[in-house]
Amino acid sequence: MGKLLIVGTVAFDAIETPFGKTDKILGGAATYISLSASQFGVHSGIVSVVGGDFPTTYLERLNARGINTDGVEIIEDGKTFFWSGKYHNDLNSRDTLITDLNVLADFNPIVPESFLNTEFLMLGNLHPAVQMGVIKQIPKRPKLIVLDTMNFWMDNTLDELMEVIAKIDVITINDEEARQLSGEYSLVKAARKIHKMGPEYVVIKKGENGALLFYNDEVFFAPALPLEEVFDPTGAGDTFAGGFIGYIAKTNDISFNNMKRAVISGSNLASFCVEKFGTERMEDLTYDEIRERLLQFKLLTQFEIELG
Amino acid sequence: MGKLLIVGTVAFDAIETPFGKTDKILGGAATYISLSASQFGVHSGIVSVVGGDFPTTYLERLNARGINTDGVEIIEDGKTFFWSGKYHNDLNSRDTLITDLNVLADFNPIVPESFLNTEFLMLGNLHPAVQMGVIKQIPKRPKLIVLDTMNFWMDNTLDELMEVIAKIDVITINDEEARQLSGEYSLVKAARKIHKMGPEYVVIKKGENGALLFYNDEVFFAPALPLEEVFDPTGAGDTFAGGFIGYIAKTNDISFNNMKRAVISGSNLASFCVEKFGTERMEDLTYDEIRERLLQFKLLTQFEIELG
Repeated sequence: MGKLLIVGTVAFDAIETPFGKTDKILGGAATYISLSASQFGVHSGIVSVVGGDFPTTYLERLNARGINTDGVEIIEDGKTFFWSGKYHNDLNSRDTLITDLNVLADFNPIVPESFLNTEFLMLGNLHPAVQMGVIKQIPKRPKLIVLDTMNFWMDNTLDELMEVIAKIDVITINDEEARQLSGEYSLVKAARKIHKMGPEYVVIKKGENGALLFYNDEVFFAPALPLEEVFDPTGAGDTFAGGFIGYIAKTNDISFNNMKRAVISGSNLASFCVEKFGTERMEDLTYDEIRERLLQFKLLTQFEIELG
Repeated sequence: MGKLLIVGTVAFDAIETPFGKTDKILGGAATYISLSASQFGVHSGIVSVVGGDFPTTYLERLNARGINTDGVEIIEDGKTFFWSGKYHNDLNSRDTLITDLNVLADFNPIVPESFLNTEFLMLGNLHPAVQMGVIKQIPKRPKLIVLDTMNFWMDNTLDELMEVIAKIDVITINDEEARQLSGEYSLVKAARKIHKMGPEYVVIKKGENGALLFYNDEVFFAPALPLEEVFDPTGAGDTFAGGFIGYIAKTNDISFNNMKRAVISGSNLASFCVEKFGTERMEDLTYDEIRERLLQFKLLTQFEIELG
């Protein structure tokens, strides 16, 4: 089992869906990634920043899942990053209502000494300069670096983002972002172009339509589990990434065949995340539930057919 | 191997995509379904109607693939059904430019005597009264009746459509149509409601995002093959249905496990259909190519993972 370092936001979210709305609750990419990866019992830590307004109990909830938060800097006279969004009726699209960067605006990440020898590095969605800052602090290149990013950084900091993309092994982005980054509509062509930018593995997330894993000319598909009800999609993409890297770190195996299992794990974890508001479901989730649902993924996709 | 009767349109299509446009070419639901099913060497026949303007050579092209066209009535002084459409740049949406029903407006289907004992019946997209007319002519209920329909009939002839739906075993519709028919956004809930309308099996087609097969509380997912280029999506849904029923008829097995293989076959055949304009690819397709691509479907979805 390998050590896992996660960089990303730790935040307040306020969410409105057709089923209700929340006050400021625990959110952020690093939060969802770490909660998801924690299901695999890996030794993980977060690099992030919060303000003096961030409840100690929130960090304790992460610690309770075995997540090291020594790398979460607390700026006592600053305010925590705050995001607020409202989902449309179909839950497939949303409006961002508020994005207050607050302490995130001037964030200088510092990797705790105990994670300088991390074997796995997960760069959650964040300013690419921060992601690069973390890469540069780690003396021995990790066994695997995974990057998650989004269209905002393609629009505003493309040059810096491209420098990060050149240094990583796996990128996870959604289908529209893959099209934007590559200029190709076909996801097969998009993945090929993105390969050439650096990452050996390209994971394209399609939400309720599953995820594609590209490796050279090979491709693997992990479906999303068809759900009766999606309650709150917030954090599903981060939870997918956390399930992916958590499984890799647990098994300590970066082969293509193991990556297939990792995207299935990511899809599995994400299917739980959307069942309740915010991080609620991820915090009461048990490994037995994950294992049981894995069986559903097998039943969903496995078939025997004669090739003759 | 069972006998297969297909009812549906045989038509002229004129198609425009970002890659070019065609004059009036061979089209229609029954055409695509039968060409697809013919890959499995089943004994199939079409019930349809064309006008005196329909080239004999078009019917001969179907006959050349072993498709019986005795049930295709020719109205010498009538004109063949004509559809014309233009695809948008992403090929995921299209505008219908022309729909001339012509001889289809007063179509009274007549099942040829040699198909009155058909074991498999495929009701392609058509007026539900015509579909019902065919069901009623067959004295011994077929082993399996599959229905394909679309939103147009839900909008305009819902009562008649519901009567047909009550009499069939398998329905194939797309995701938006499943939502419209059921009034449920969640496809899991939609399938459950549609089950209660009659069909034991509900197949929900999601285009480039694959297809779901629902059977009681079980669900199976067939992905679409990620393609470098989609040239012309016309007929892909019908080709999927043809690959589904063709595989069932060939294997003469209507178990859930065989239905899984059938949706994979449907997805496999549809992946070829979109590679060229109209029926072109379906007419030069060989069984070796289908078998080879089936291996790609296995590689795309099959994984081994420890449940422990």
